[in-house]
Amino acid sequence: MNISIDMTTTSIEEGIGYWLRRAQQVVLHDFSETFVPYDLRPAEFSLLMLLSSHPGIKQSDAAEILGIQRANFVALVDALQQRGLAERRKPESDRRVQALYLTKQGTDFVLETTGKWRQHENRMITRLGGLDDRDQLIELLTRLSA
Amino acid sequence: MNISIDMTTTSIEEGIGYWLRRAQQVVLHDFSETFVPYDLRPAEFSLLMLLSSHPGIKQSDAAEILGIQRANFVALVDALQQRGLAERRKPESDRRVQALYLTKQGTDFVLETTGKWRQHENRMITRLGGLDDRDQLIELLTRLSA
Repeated sequence: MNISIDMTTTSIEEGIGYWLRRAQQVVLHDFSETFVPYDLRPAEFSLLMLLSSHPGIKQSDAAEILGIQRANFVALVDALQQRGLAERRKPESDRRVQALYLTKQGTDFVLETTGKWRQHENRMITRLGGLDDRDQLIELLTRLSA
Repeated sequence: MNISIDMTTTSIEEGIGYWLRRAQQVVLHDFSETFVPYDLRPAEFSLLMLLSSHPGIKQSDAAEILGIQRANFVALVDALQQRGLAERRKPESDRRVQALYLTKQGTDFVLETTGKWRQHENRMITRLGGLDDRDQLIELLTRLSA
């Protein structure tokens, strides 16, 4: 593969990391504003969404998918458990692992808040210019994190 | 403008914020590995680069460009000042503002480390597929943070 190499960039404002950070600040700010009424941090909502689409996921797998370190992830699950939104269970098939589920209350909560999350996503999609641009952005971000 | 709207996304792994975060983790990890020998955090290096391209920039402008909150930014400048890399000066034209400069040592340090930073950027550009993809990514990220 013949990759073009950059030898001219001299300003931090031309760097990939700089723009990733600025974009993430905007997205996180919009997210936080959206979820103020629910007193929910982005990581908490991400985990609830993940448990909704992957019920029974192993705690270690969920931490890896969300890119959250083990100690922080345990605290995150604890917080959702204390709010009655998620629970740990040991599956019959393997008592050594912790499987994660939404509670009934957690399922209702995700149903109630998913619409808000989509509105947040749609505001970001509008900023980008449309769904094609969103897909292109995610494709490029996927390459970075591959 | 006719913007397509997403009403079907139900998984957090389809969200823009999710992929921004994953990509940023990879970029930050590579950056941190690169700068281990220099004992330098990303924000510290970003500020040094900014002072190199904008000598005499006002403290408040620098904080805004880097997207760092005021209290954190003051601590950041203090840290670089203590290491003898940056300094504050009050310009004759307006004694109320703080202008930021690299010291001679800071200038040497930026010259020495810019090559390392470019190597880091080039690894990210290679992951993306080349300079055109980098430009496209930054264009999309700029739209998000506009």
